[in-house]
Amino acid sequence: MDAAELNEFLAEVFPDGRVSTVEYADGKTTRTRCVYDRKQLRPGGTISGPTMMALADTAVYALVLSAIGRVPLAVTTNLSINFFRKPQPGDLIAEARMLKLGKALAVGDVIIRSDGSDVVAHAVVTYSIPPR
Amino acid sequence: MDAAELNEFLAEVFPDGRVSTVEYADGKTTRTRCVYDRKQLRPGGTISGPTMMALADTAVYALVLSAIGRVPLAVTTNLSINFFRKPQPGDLIAEARMLKLGKALAVGDVIIRSDGSDVVAHAVVTYSIPPR
Amino acid sequence: MDAAELNEFLAEVFPDGRVSTVEYADGKTTRTRCVYDRKQLRPGGTISGPTMMALADTAVYALVLSAIGRVPLAVTTNLSINFFRKPQPGDLIAEARMLKLGKALAVGDVIIRSDGSDVVAHAVVTYSIPPR
Amino acid sequence: MDAAELNEFLAEVFPDGRVSTVEYADGKTTRTRCVYDRKQLRPGGTISGPTMMALADTAVYALVLSAIGRVPLAVTTNLSINFFRKPQPGDLIAEARMLKLGKALAVGDVIIRSDGSDVVAHAVVTYSIPPR
Repeated sequence: MDAAELNEFLAEVFPDGRVSTVEYADGKTTRTRCVYDRKQLRPGGTISGPTMMALADTAVYALVLSAIGRVPLAVTTNLSINFFRKPQPGDLIAEARMLKLGKALAVGDVIIRSDGSDVVAHAVVTYSIPPR
Repeated sequence: MDAAELNEFLAEVFPDGRVSTVEYADGKTTRTRCVYDRKQLRPGGTISGPTMMALADTAVYALVLSAIGRVPLAVTTNLSINFFRKPQPGDLIAEARMLKLGKALAVGDVIIRSDGSDVVAHAVVTYSIPPR
Repeated sequence: MDAAELNEFLAEVFPDGRVSTVEYADGKTTRTRCVYDRKQLRPGGTISGPTMMALADTAVYALVLSAIGRVPLAVTTNLSINFFRKPQPGDLIAEARMLKLGKALAVGDVIIRSDGSDVVAHAVVTYSIPPR
Repeated sequence: MDAAELNEFLAEVFPDGRVSTVEYADGKTTRTRCVYDRKQLRPGGTISGPTMMALADTAVYALVLSAIGRVPLAVTTNLSINFFRKPQPGDLIAEARMLKLGKALAVGDVIIRSDGSDVVAHAVVTYSIPPR
């Protein structure tokens, strides 16, 4: 699936309130943008951790689907994230790369940046791929 | 801070849309409930991973504040979560315990259950405590 | 497998230099002791991180085998460990509990203590169980 | 510190049995080789998980020291590793890159390959840097 197909699919399966957009996808890497929304703020005026976790999760979901096609029931089995800096209000960009693509499991990592700027977090996400 | 103080505090600092309620807190353990909302569903009719990640994060935030008092700027530095089963639609319960409480870092783990039922996920969360 | 069977098995499959002993195993929890050896020291006179990682890995291997029997080819797929305090020279005790036991995956967590004393580390370990 | 200085330092602080050699270090990336030793084998004839964990830990230790100089008391606070494939007997190569270098914490990730071949594991390692 390419970026346009992924966005259409994500809008279909998450009809409520998803604010991430896949900007690029080639089966090995993806770039996903989380559009800023002030509901994402937490005390101190920074973007919340769960916003970044959800972005990392979506970025690797898009990565896996870009590699194997439309498999809605792929599910996250592990997510590990380190937060480095407090992102200022604004869009976040997630750059994901595939580390392993097996039959039953796929693992990708994700670097999250404030748009045009510093690395704010890094995540590793494992998806379980159902038998087809 | 006890459960009532924590809920008042969480409502104040997260005015938009937080749906977790602290039911018990004693500085060493907490129990936090995530009230079911159909917006949390993902393909397959199960509750989404990010819902559980946000619950784990909040549960340890409540745990840390129950131990050290009102420190809004404590921030997550690492969260690692394993998903075991797909939770059916319904409330989730997070039971957190403190593993380490230092001056600069606190680490807790969290077992998440479907209400009255199976363990669906386990997370370990590290918070950085700002100097006071 | 009980503790005596596990120790016999570990000695057989790791003939070189293993220094961990299973003291208790009931399929849901295990207690494993890592006997102190000065080769484990690192700069500063504390026990090295890799010593504790290997202990956590062995403790969950023993836990899985105590639950499912002699399956030598069970392999670790993920290990995540937090280090809390520098252990002083001396034995380490690992207390493991099963978080999930499925057909294909088992997940356990481990609290590591200096003998008779503080928690020094906590790990979560996932094993993949080969089809039988 | 460059690769030669790091190897001299590692030999000094780990006088017993260390088998990793830093081949390249520039403060942002390092390449570290774990020389094959049949004591590293586990059931099934593959290299053990703890061998790869120790390699990942050393690779990021070398990375941190290559960036900040001789700070023996930097200690690991978190290590998370995913194992992808069973490495065949032979040398392992660890390629580490710095994700964050702060005053108090440094985080690096590591790709481990069988020499000349596939990715076998990926780790993320956090070091705590003592005040100077």
